[in-house]
Amino acid sequence: EDRTPRFATHQIGVSGMVYREETKEILVVKDKNSQFSYWKFPGGLSDLEEDIADTAEREILEETGINSEFLSILAFRQQHQQPGAFGRSDIFVVCRLKPLTFDIMHCENEISHCKWMSLEELHANTTDISPITHRMCQIMLHGIKHGFDNVDIRFKEMKSVYKGLKYKLYHRPLP
Amino acid sequence: EDRTPRFATHQIGVSGMVYREETKEILVVKDKNSQFSYWKFPGGLSDLEEDIADTAEREILEETGINSEFLSILAFRQQHQQPGAFGRSDIFVVCRLKPLTFDIMHCENEISHCKWMSLEELHANTTDISPITHRMCQIMLHGIKHGFDNVDIRFKEMKSVYKGLKYKLYHRPLP
Repeated sequence: EDRTPRFATHQIGVSGMVYREETKEILVVKDKNSQFSYWKFPGGLSDLEEDIADTAEREILEETGINSEFLSILAFRQQHQQPGAFGRSDIFVVCRLKPLTFDIMHCENEISHCKWMSLEELHANTTDISPITHRMCQIMLHGIKHGFDNVDIRFKEMKSVYKGLKYKLYHRPLP
Repeated sequence: EDRTPRFATHQIGVSGMVYREETKEILVVKDKNSQFSYWKFPGGLSDLEEDIADTAEREILEETGINSEFLSILAFRQQHQQPGAFGRSDIFVVCRLKPLTFDIMHCENEISHCKWMSLEELHANTTDISPITHRMCQIMLHGIKHGFDNVDIRFKEMKSVYKGLKYKLYHRPLP
């Protein structure tokens, strides 16, 4: 049996639900270069050694011009045979963020449309969103109604057993 | 700017907390070839295209001889500069499983010790476990006391927008 460790098997993608409490709106984009014309949440692939939360904030800023603050992870997906991933698999993480600025300046190269849209309207859309976006709207609406403690996956920073290394452990909030 | 997609950046490791309700014991092992002599939960790296749940069940069986059934994800960790990962990063997922068999037959190549240990005893251990194991005991004990709905991250299988592909979306249980 071959006991050699395998090389990296996954890329990590991150997208962000940036929710504006006062107006009940959420930040959505349409990709310029996608075969689909769905409204979706801004996001993209993690750089090597970049934390999930940092990817979310960076991609949101690059794509929409909005500064935001990471709050929690709401969901993640494991997808094998991910198109464009060179035969590797994909972990796609959906985060919840708070907007720090509100004026959109979207990236002309990657994004064709970008706006603040009513969360209820996005949730009710049956043609222009993918199943995962619909599901994420459900989760967000549940959190708004019953408290985000019911939907959030939060992190605790911990010290690794390997000297000098730290990591983030994501799990349900403990009392 | 280089717009070429990056190659896979992460390996996925999975370990399993196999909890035996009737005796309040949990399945623990000691690695034969580790620099640490910690009690830990059985687990290992995902094969290419292997789902998290399947890795947990396979590694538990290989290392301990115990058949088990995946129930939920309790936590995951993102670690950069993971030793032995060729400069890539590591996502390490901790699952909760139900034992289907109870007689241990541990792997002589990889495992030096394997046993059912009282969960309370493992939680109280201050020398022979790593910080993440201690934290995971806390989370498991919280679930036992207040209901696993408070700690579980569960999945829903969904259809991809890419024809023929399915994926698992992990998030908090919705009512």
